[in-house]
Parts: sequence; C-alpha cells; structure tokens
Amino acid sequence: MAKDKKFVEEITAMEDDFAQWYTDVVKKADLVDYSSVRGSMIIRPYGFAIWENVRDVLDGKIKETGHENIYMPLLIPESLLQKEKDHIEGFAPEVAWVTHGGSEELAERLVIRPTSEVLFGEHYANIIHSYRDLPKLYNQWANVVRWEKTTRPFLRSLEFLWQEGHTCHATSEDAQEETSRMLEMYAEVCEKYLAIPVLRGRKTDKEKFAGAVHTLTIESLMHDGKALQSGTSHYLGTGFAEAFGIQFTDKNGELQTVHQTSWGITTRLIGALIMVHGDNRGLVVPPKIAPKQLMIVPIAQHKEGVLDKAYELRDQLKKVARVDIDASDKMPGWKFNEYEMKGIPLRLEVGPKDIEKGQVVLARRDTGEKIFVAMEDLEAKVVELLEDIQNNLFEKAKAHREEKTNIALNMDEFKKALVENPGFIKAMWCGDVACENFIKDETSATSRCIPFEEEKISDTCVCCGGEAKHLVYWAKAY
Amino acid sequence: MAKDKKFVEEITAMEDDFAQWYTDVVKKADLVDYSSVRGSMIIRPYGFAIWENVRDVLDGKIKETGHENIYMPLLIPESLLQKEKDHIEGFAPEVAWVTHGGSEELAERLVIRPTSEVLFGEHYANIIHSYRDLPKLYNQWANVVRWEKTTRPFLRSLEFLWQEGHTCHATSEDAQEETSRMLEMYAEVCEKYLAIPVLRGRKTDKEKFAGAVHTLTIESLMHDGKALQSGTSHYLGTGFAEAFGIQFTDKNGELQTVHQTSWGITTRLIGALIMVHGDNRGLVVPPKIAPKQLMIVPIAQHKEGVLDKAYELRDQLKKVARVDIDASDKMPGWKFNEYEMKGIPLRLEVGPKDIEKGQVVLARRDTGEKIFVAMEDLEAKVVELLEDIQNNLFEKAKAHREEKTNIALNMDEFKKALVENPGFIKAMWCGDVACENFIKDETSATSRCIPFEEEKISDTCVCCGGEAKHLVYWAKAY
Repeated sequence: MAKDKKFVEEITAMEDDFAQWYTDVVKKADLVDYSSVRGSMIIRPYGFAIWENVRDVLDGKIKETGHENIYMPLLIPESLLQKEKDHIEGFAPEVAWVTHGGSEELAERLVIRPTSEVLFGEHYANIIHSYRDLPKLYNQWANVVRWEKTTRPFLRSLEFLWQEGHTCHATSEDAQEETSRMLEMYAEVCEKYLAIPVLRGRKTDKEKFAGAVHTLTIESLMHDGKALQSGTSHYLGTGFAEAFGIQFTDKNGELQTVHQTSWGITTRLIGALIMVHGDNRGLVVPPKIAPKQLMIVPIAQHKEGVLDKAYELRDQLKKVARVDIDASDKMPGWKFNEYEMKGIPLRLEVGPKDIEKGQVVLARRDTGEKIFVAMEDLEAKVVELLEDIQNNLFEKAKAHREEKTNIALNMDEFKKALVENPGFIKAMWCGDVACENFIKDETSATSRCIPFEEEKISDTCVCCGGEAKHLVYWAKAY
Repeated sequence: MAKDKKFVEEITAMEDDFAQWYTDVVKKADLVDYSSVRGSMIIRPYGFAIWENVRDVLDGKIKETGHENIYMPLLIPESLLQKEKDHIEGFAPEVAWVTHGGSEELAERLVIRPTSEVLFGEHYANIIHSYRDLPKLYNQWANVVRWEKTTRPFLRSLEFLWQEGHTCHATSEDAQEETSRMLEMYAEVCEKYLAIPVLRGRKTDKEKFAGAVHTLTIESLMHDGKALQSGTSHYLGTGFAEAFGIQFTDKNGELQTVHQTSWGITTRLIGALIMVHGDNRGLVVPPKIAPKQLMIVPIAQHKEGVLDKAYELRDQLKKVARVDIDASDKMPGWKFNEYEMKGIPLRLEVGPKDIEKGQVVLARRDTGEKIFVAMEDLEAKVVELLEDIQNNLFEKAKAHREEKTNIALNMDEFKKALVENPGFIKAMWCGDVACENFIKDETSATSRCIPFEEEKISDTCVCCGGEAKHLVYWAKAY
C-alpha cells in the first residue's frame, strides 16, 4: 500500500480563515501550482479540464449565435493603444512592456495585450465598408496580461485566460441588443452549468470599462459574503469606431460610424466555482462541467471478481456519464478523501458483499448521502442523481445569496449589515460618484450593479439622503 | 446585384512568382490580415476555423493516448531560462524581453515564452517524486513568440500558435518510444487529415533542437520544391532533468533522474496546406479539415422554388457533411470564384432546370469536374466524393513529391538537380558538419532528415567523398 501521501490531507476550515481555505483547496485539489513566475499560475490538468468544459459550453453558444472565432496578435504597439484616450488611461498603469527583441532595443515599445479593443478596431476599419458587412460578430480565446501587484490564483493574476467578444453593428439599438444578449448568455452558462446564481445589472459610471458607454455585469456571491464580478458585456458606442475610423456606407449611400460591443469571461469563473460550492472537505464541482462525474472505488479489490465487476460497471456507465476508476493499491479511505477533495460529484463503491447482493453504493459529494442501488437500476439512478446534484448546488447557492442579501436605508444599517450578515446590500443611491467614493472609503464596499429589475425601497440615497435615483447592490468584492 | 467586389479576383500565377501567389492566396482566401504589429498576423475566421479543425483532431489523439492538457505562464524569468545552457544559447537571440510592468522597471527581465521546457522542468521537479508518478504526459496549446527578422504569414511569424507536449519517463527507452509515437501521430494527422505526405526521419546534430539529444522530424514538400519542417519530436535525455533536478525514487528505493521528451506542431501546418494543395484558382482544403465541405449555390434563385429546394438540400445534407448555402444576391459566377478561392471541396449548383429533372450539379474543387447527380443519390454521392477528394489530394501530393525527389552521387549532380528539378535530394553523407555547412553555403540546401528507412545509394559522401554514414534528404527549406 502506498504511503507516499498522507491518509487525510487537512485543509484549513473556511470559518477559521477563508483565504487560507481557498489557497489550500486550489493546491490540494490539484487545480494550480506556483512557479518562479511571480503572480502567474500553472493551471494543472484537473483545473484545466474544468476550464476546457466551461470553454466548450460557451464556445458552442457563441458559435450558435453566429459569432466567429479569430486570433489577434499578442503584442500591441504603444501608439495603437493610445488611439482611444479613456482606454489608454484605464490600462496604461497595468500593462507589461516589451522593450527589446533579441539583443536590440525596439524603436517603439509594445504592450502585451491587456484586452484587444484596439486591435479589433484597426482590423474592423480594414474590413468593414458597407452595411452588407454588418454585423461583424467576432470572438477570441486568448491569454491576457495585467500587471497586478497582489495576486491570487484564478481571482487576480498577472496572466489569465479568457474569451473576448468584439462586435460591430449598424445601429446603437443592434449593438445594445447584442450587449444584453451576451450578458444573458453568460448568466445562463453560470446558472445552468456552473450552478452559480448571478445578479444581472448595469455598472455605475465609476465601475464601467475604460472606454465603454455602459457596462453590463453579472455578479455572484461567495461563501464568505464577498461578491465576484463574473462576466461583463460592454456597449462601446462609437468611441473606438471614431478613433479607428470604422465606417460603412448605409443603404442610402451615406457614410455612418459603427456601434460596437465587447464582452468577456475569464478563468476567474473557476475561482467563483470554488468559493460558491466548496466546503471543508474541498472542492465541489457541478456535474455539468465536472471532468469526471463519477469515480469508482473498488472495495477489497484483491478479492476475486471485484476488479472485474468494477471495470464492467465503468464500461457500462460510460454511456451515461464521465466515469473513471481508481484501481491503484491505495486504501479506499485515501481514495474517498482524494476524490472528495477534487469535488467529483458521485463516488461508486463496490465490494464483495455488494456483488453478492447485486448492488452498489453511490455517495453524493454535495450532501454526503450514501445510497444503495440495485445493479439493474444503476444507469438510471446515476443520471437522476447527477441532475439532482446539479440542481441542488444551484438552489443551495441561491438560498445562501438570498440569506446574505440585506436591505439598508441609511449608513448605520449599511455598516451593521456588513458586519452582522456580510453579503449583498440593497440600498438606494442618488447617482453621485461622491457617495460611491464615500461608501467605499468608509466600508470597503463598492457598487456591484444597478439591477435590471429595479425596485424602489426608499426615496432617499443611503449615503447623502438626497433624492434616490437607483437601487444598487453593494458588496465587498474580489 | 452587388458590385462591391470584382467579379473575378485575380491572383498571381504560381509559376510566375510563387511567393506572391502565396501572399495573394492567404489574403484573398480570407485566411489572414495584417495589422500594425510588425511580423504578426491576424488569423481571420476562415483561417482560424481550419486551425480549430486541425487542433481538435490532434487534441483528441493526444488525449486518447493518455496525455493531459495544462497551462503554463507566458512569461519566463531570465534566470529560469538560463538553467539549461544549450537551450538559452539557442533561444536568447530570438526572444522578446519584458522590462517594465506598469510604470516600474523590473528587477529581473522576463522573456515571452519561445517554448516552455524550462517551465515544465521546474514544475516537474515539484510534482515528481516516485516511480508511481511516472510517466507524466502533459501537453499545452499556447501562443509563443520568437523575434524573427523576416516574417511570412503562417510560415514564420513573430507570434504563432502551437501545441507543445512535454513528458517525463522512468527510462530512456520509454522516453524514446514516446518521441517516436508522437512523431508518428503527427505524421498520421498530416497524411490522413491534411492529406500531406511526409518523410519521417531524424535531424542531424546541426539541425536538432537546442537542448535535445536527438530530434525526430516530419518533412513535407511544397509546390515550389522547397521543404517544410512540419512537426518535430525531441528526445531530451536527462539534460533538462539534471538542470532542474527532476528526480524520482525507483522501485528499489534508489534516486534516479527522469528522461524527457518534447514535441510540437504549429500554425505552420496551414502554410503547408496552402503550398501543397493550392493552385492558381486559390486554396484547396482537404475535406476532413475543411470548415465547410460543400457550398450550395442556387442558380436563378429568384425563380419560384429554387431557394426552397436549396435550403431543403442544405438541411438534408447536414447529416452527412459540413454544408453551407450562399443565398446572397451576388451573381453565381462571383460565388463560384469566391468558394474556389476558399478551396471548399464541393460546390452544389441547383437551378430551375435541375429541379425539373430531379438532379443537381456537384463541382469538385480538386479536379474541376462537374457531375450530375440524381436527387435520390445525393447523400451517398457527397460522402463518396468527399472521400475521393481527400484521397486524390494525398495521392497527387505524393506523386508530386516522388517526381521531385532526386538522387545525387556528387556535388555536380546535387547542384544540377536543384536547378532542373527542385525538390528533395537523396544523397549520402559522411556525418561531418563541415560537409553540411559546405552544402548549405554552396547551394542553400540544408539536411532535412536522415530517414528512418535508410538506403545505401553509394559508399561515399556526396560532398567530401569520404566514407558515407547516412542517407540524407536535402532541400531548400522554409
């Protein structure tokens, strides 16, 4: 029996130190490893397989809705980045600069893309001429670099993976419709696949993307009551189009400027997954995006017939689920811990007694429940349980968010809620950035979004007492 | 009717100027566009869809053979790159240097990965401890940057996309077996999917990878008689493992050093595809990797029933092929040219007369042949033709390569062959790098590979007349 790993790998309890719990989980569930590259992470096979599943689901939806994938250069000349002034102001402090190629100093510095609006802008100016060329619906899967000082795996790192959609439309209405459509696509991927409930709304001007007219966002709530921006979709108006000269001849022969959008989700979603579903035994992966949905652990596998049966079950269950088997000589207890740490939704145990009785044991990762299932019902039961786990994770996360959503009518209530029941705070806002700044300075909470479905819970701003314009969800955030 | 594009888009004839023909095809078939980023290319949707198909085929095979995908950081600290001395010597002259993050100068410069051996080396040293951890079979899909002076789309660019496999094994035999297995996988992808016949062999020491014990290669021959290295697989021995301390305890409790491999193919393969199958009407894409295998062009589509029939055929053929329809108001002649330029394997024409007769016309891109097919035979015929086109492209390319493969017993024959029948030259070699250098200086041809299946066509070196050690394939190369 192998002794090269401890029987139980302990992780910090999330109640004791949530940040350390997170770090323990990403490391012990084999999601990431560190390297000598400051602030960057190695995404290990298990973490990358989760990302591949998220990517494949979203890529399918992006293509179904008529978007095409494209690949833009990694390096952007400084002069190109400077073409849209809000954009360069927003990004200049956090880019990596390439100054030398081989042994030569470059005549013009290059930045590693922090995002690719300017490259798409230049390309669109080249290829769009007529209303017949519109809409142009492009998407790119890529790595980007932002020079962050403090980094954490998946949540904030020097380099991350993402997709960035960039589209051009004939009218503002078309572009805004696209902006909303893509946000709803993100919300669907989060809710239906990652089992993460999200708020849908609009960012305040202070929090919007550098260069956007407005930014739509989906916001999710972590176990510790902090919010995480989980996807954004920007209506860019004509700002970039004017800077880059993206114009087209309309049906009447008149020259018009295109309206643009951009939208993205990143490997951050894996951070959200960990902090929404994880527990003190480790990661919990929703079945729809789990690289392995069911792990077979043979019991007393040296006894005759056990391994044969286990492999037979694997081959049988392959038809209905992503199944694997661990037939190594490690103890079952070690295996139980290992696959609980990795968050595999179902474990199947089969031993000599089970075989005698014509049954197996299924253990749910989400509830810990153990269920005896007759062999002949197995396939149907696995399908049913995977669906049930998927739904249960979503409902649990939603209940948690609702429980952690507070209402505040004044700053005292606001501060009290943040201490007593940290999570979202619904509060009215006058629309003045001064109040946003004040709230941030006083409480560290930021405006997360103005929800699409606005309510009026009071007539006055939670901060200044002036006339309320919007309901805002506030929270401390990652 | 649209007049915003010329009826016929002319491209340079390949006999007149092969380099210009290539540039015309990549541009007019909408594979790439240029940007203000020197030496980089925008891979446009059509080009990227071809790459996605190649990637998906290879990714499936990589996973089937037990490899796992992983993602490593883009940026490598200078000190890490320097750990293996042959490696840094080989790559230092062609890397991009990041010297600043935001407004601060970095204490240590970073390179944008030209390849990731050192990152894998460091990671493997972290995670490999016991013989139980071996083999480790990792792969990464990524972008890399090499500071090339002269660049051409797909063939040689500052940035390109690739996969890089990196594996660790307990023994030299295991590692060498992996090196061969992966080369054969590349050969299969080239021959069965890209329809490109390849020579399989070993690089001479002069041409091997910086840091490898030996490099295996597949080499293909372009229309113009130049060779293109189409994939390489390196046996790294223990060089990197020693530099990074990748050691494991074997079954007897003794400390051993792992044996490593690395292997890669790149977006260069799209360049090969263009130059192996293309003709003076543009690109020709083999059916198995064609984003669209059949394009429906309705004839006299304003006449009643034509468009309905065309859409009906599209829906019917979707079951057996990747089908699209162009129902725009452009002239059929424009459409014919457009989809020939894009190299779509089959075109289906259907007009009022065809409908009356219960038939359609299928036009093959590879031979230009037009075939009348009864509606009821259509599905079967499409499947048959796509297979036939795939095979025909391979056979044509193979015949071309054979025709362009010369034998030379001395330098006069060598030089004569390069002028009269440019292509591969089979010639014996003494094993001395001086002869390789002499041949390169005299003729611009380089040693492409020592084929796995060696023949002895003479006893003496083609260059110095000394004792022959190996048969070598030589050629001018991209």
